[in-house]
Amino acid sequence: AVLGDRWTLRILSDCFLRVRRFDEFFKRLGMPRTNLANRLNRLEEHDVLKTVAYQDNPTRYEYRLTSKGLELYPVLATLLAWGDKHYSDEAGPPIIRTHKKCGHDFQVFVGCSECGEPVDPRAVTARKRPDNEDFPPVLRGPVTKQS
Amino acid sequence: AVLGDRWTLRILSDCFLRVRRFDEFFKRLGMPRTNLANRLNRLEEHDVLKTVAYQDNPTRYEYRLTSKGLELYPVLATLLAWGDKHYSDEAGPPIIRTHKKCGHDFQVFVGCSECGEPVDPRAVTARKRPDNEDFPPVLRGPVTKQS
Repeated sequence: AVLGDRWTLRILSDCFLRVRRFDEFFKRLGMPRTNLANRLNRLEEHDVLKTVAYQDNPTRYEYRLTSKGLELYPVLATLLAWGDKHYSDEAGPPIIRTHKKCGHDFQVFVGCSECGEPVDPRAVTARKRPDNEDFPPVLRGPVTKQS
Repeated sequence: AVLGDRWTLRILSDCFLRVRRFDEFFKRLGMPRTNLANRLNRLEEHDVLKTVAYQDNPTRYEYRLTSKGLELYPVLATLLAWGDKHYSDEAGPPIIRTHKKCGHDFQVFVGCSECGEPVDPRAVTARKRPDNEDFPPVLRGPVTKQS
């Protein structure tokens, strides 16, 4: 529910590009000011963004990711990778990202915390926590069958 | 825009638990039938789900993930991991997942396609593709500063 809104996703994507100020979000996203303000407030209420004063007289605030917000990076990065793959024009993705740690342009993959290998959804099984009565997993067979 | 809706995220999460039939989605998600039908149709239009007949007389269809839909697994898995971390009660996440390839219960991390290491958003820089005039990256400094 925190993320379920395409404007919110675009705001968060900009946050990871170090966009911080209201007017800058406004200029880049082209959404109505009140909608932008509502989304930013909501992200602050959910402790995803925090406001930090960057100017006195008058005091002005900018929006920064909290540690909980920074932990959304995997979600945004995988969503952008999916969009790059399926919605790029023939010239390729509009934004190219470099991993400073290794120095290469990169995309992300999801790996298993235990073995480090990329995770294929067909190799995942789920079970409910023993005391959890709600919303049971189903998982009767492969995610997709040949058809 | 494909994902930007919390009901759509819940439907997709169920798809990865092998839920396939309209009545099963309906029973699990508790959303109005028309809303569910609209969301499923939209996912089919976007080539994320496909309908496959599973019964004749009358013909009945179930919804399966396409290959494009299966490639959303990283987005769903990272979102669920974030939710598990920040919104679980003290008994832990409601659903536990096992990676059949290595045999362990696991969570996902995002790794760099080039070096395989986990990616910290503060170690990512972005540049726009040279011919891309829209929506330039900003990236003037670290994602968050100490404050």
